[in-house]
Amino acid sequence: MPKTNGSPLIIDCHGHYTTAPKALEAWRNQQIAGIKDPTAKPKVADLKISDDDIRETILGNQLKLMNERGNDMTLFSPRASFMAHHIGDFEVSSTWAAICNELCFRVSELFPEHFVPVAMLPQSPGVDPATCIPELEKCVKEYGAVGINLNPDPSGGHWTSPPLTDKHWYPIYEKMVEHDLPAMIHVSTSCNACFHTTGAHYLNADTTAFMQCLTGDLFKDFPTLKFLIPHGGGAVPYHWGRFRGLAQELKKPLLEEHLLNNIFFDTCVYHQPGIDLLNKVIPVKNVLFASEMIGAVRGIDPQTGHYYDDTKRYVEACPQLSDADRAQIFEGNTRRVFSRLDTRLKAKGL
Amino acid sequence: MPKTNGSPLIIDCHGHYTTAPKALEAWRNQQIAGIKDPTAKPKVADLKISDDDIRETILGNQLKLMNERGNDMTLFSPRASFMAHHIGDFEVSSTWAAICNELCFRVSELFPEHFVPVAMLPQSPGVDPATCIPELEKCVKEYGAVGINLNPDPSGGHWTSPPLTDKHWYPIYEKMVEHDLPAMIHVSTSCNACFHTTGAHYLNADTTAFMQCLTGDLFKDFPTLKFLIPHGGGAVPYHWGRFRGLAQELKKPLLEEHLLNNIFFDTCVYHQPGIDLLNKVIPVKNVLFASEMIGAVRGIDPQTGHYYDDTKRYVEACPQLSDADRAQIFEGNTRRVFSRLDTRLKAKGL
Repeated sequence: MPKTNGSPLIIDCHGHYTTAPKALEAWRNQQIAGIKDPTAKPKVADLKISDDDIRETILGNQLKLMNERGNDMTLFSPRASFMAHHIGDFEVSSTWAAICNELCFRVSELFPEHFVPVAMLPQSPGVDPATCIPELEKCVKEYGAVGINLNPDPSGGHWTSPPLTDKHWYPIYEKMVEHDLPAMIHVSTSCNACFHTTGAHYLNADTTAFMQCLTGDLFKDFPTLKFLIPHGGGAVPYHWGRFRGLAQELKKPLLEEHLLNNIFFDTCVYHQPGIDLLNKVIPVKNVLFASEMIGAVRGIDPQTGHYYDDTKRYVEACPQLSDADRAQIFEGNTRRVFSRLDTRLKAKGL
Repeated sequence: MPKTNGSPLIIDCHGHYTTAPKALEAWRNQQIAGIKDPTAKPKVADLKISDDDIRETILGNQLKLMNERGNDMTLFSPRASFMAHHIGDFEVSSTWAAICNELCFRVSELFPEHFVPVAMLPQSPGVDPATCIPELEKCVKEYGAVGINLNPDPSGGHWTSPPLTDKHWYPIYEKMVEHDLPAMIHVSTSCNACFHTTGAHYLNADTTAFMQCLTGDLFKDFPTLKFLIPHGGGAVPYHWGRFRGLAQELKKPLLEEHLLNNIFFDTCVYHQPGIDLLNKVIPVKNVLFASEMIGAVRGIDPQTGHYYDDTKRYVEACPQLSDADRAQIFEGNTRRVFSRLDTRLKAKGL
């Protein structure tokens, strides 16, 4: 349902709490110190962040830019690069995820018109993903999370977990299906010197995840499972012909049938030609508006005079989209893919 | 210099000998068996491939398609996925590289109008790249190689080597500069189950290599070093705004100045919208025609009725290119980047 003025809600499906109060990072550093020196280990209660602290970090940052750009709402998850699932063991990840998820929940409570929580999981390399389920359940039931971020490489650039099509991941998928929760497939910081985190590892992971799904038959086992591939799908739309051809060689169905009922792409592509290509090759129904603001690329593009990550401008200027297409990308697709968001919005009369 | 009819030479700068006689693969399998069981180890002399064997594999494959498509010449290197530098030790890689390079040289001798050799290197994980120099020198001096393929990840998907900006690689770069040899940055088979070789590892490596160069200052140390990033640059042109923005955050010069005097992209992008994007964002002088035929994607695109990898069609149909631009992409840029090719062509009056 559009806004009262007839224009669509502008829902950014990919935002992280990158501006959390400094106390959070200080606590995390203390937690990391505690891995080697248990006497340094902080208690959860040592972290003091007031509602005013949170308000300040949001009002002067995300909400300010959302207002400037005309974005109404952001699906908001903990900072991706700080998930750092490779650090410590499951207990370390579990405590850290609980803290970060609670903070995003508090943001959503303080700004209920503008932020909706998406949960990170307490993944840890070599640990059964089923261990993430209690945190996932809590975030859905107590925090109203409408989606999760799933890290296909909790090792941080060493890629030691099985592909996403492996039964290793099925406990998570069963919960996703049960709650109709989509997962954004999003890695965290790279601790492999070859991969720059936001310039290589993120994009590589997007391409890798898509190709894992292409070679497998995961969506036969989970016909309603939904994956959102961020950063415009990594290299995928640019190489759409390559992927169509590879699917053909592997005797898979056409990608529309094989993958596009279950895989979606966001619009975190930071220039007009990229967004134009995305919308030329990927069906409108599979594209969800997002900016990942405030994130990896915070500057102003000297070629346009606007922020690189003000992706709304590119979607608006994209010549092959109709107004109806844009309404799908800004609102309709996200409400369809994130069905719990739709329920929440309908309850508010939106 | 163009052909006598005024049209440019069509030079494909990215071809591999993917159709080599089956005896080559059988010999390689024997060599691999010999790693565990030294009594199984074959002699180089055990491999028998006649000139007629070679002629047959080229005439019915690459040359047939080149003639059909109107491609005049291919820079021809050993099959990328078979380099498999992760197998065995330096001695294994060294013997294998010597055999493969000699075969490409023989192709170039049998079809001197159509094939020009590019060398693979006998890389091996954890081994000093300087060990590759004797093979490199032989290929340049005895075989007339005009470029090399450099694997940034000889581990095959575990990424255990330092980034390309590390001094680890400098012995190779010194030789490249000495001989004015460009390197195509090309990985080989992935032995990491997460990465499909041609659908993920290849593209990821392209993006990774570009970002390594972006974060470093390699071309200050080697102002004449030239890297060709294959597969249309992986994810790079599609995310050109992201890379411009990341360079800005890292206080690097504009990409044109920072990287585009030294980094070039090929046209191995297998659909029209991808080629159009490439030529919209990357300067004409940095784009080199290539198809990687006969390679990863061998089928016919049902949307066009033509081979996915017939990239000449896309370059010809790309609306923003002038005839002069196309002449640069098909011939001029490749002769400039591969200066030893230019010398060779001029000696033939071309």
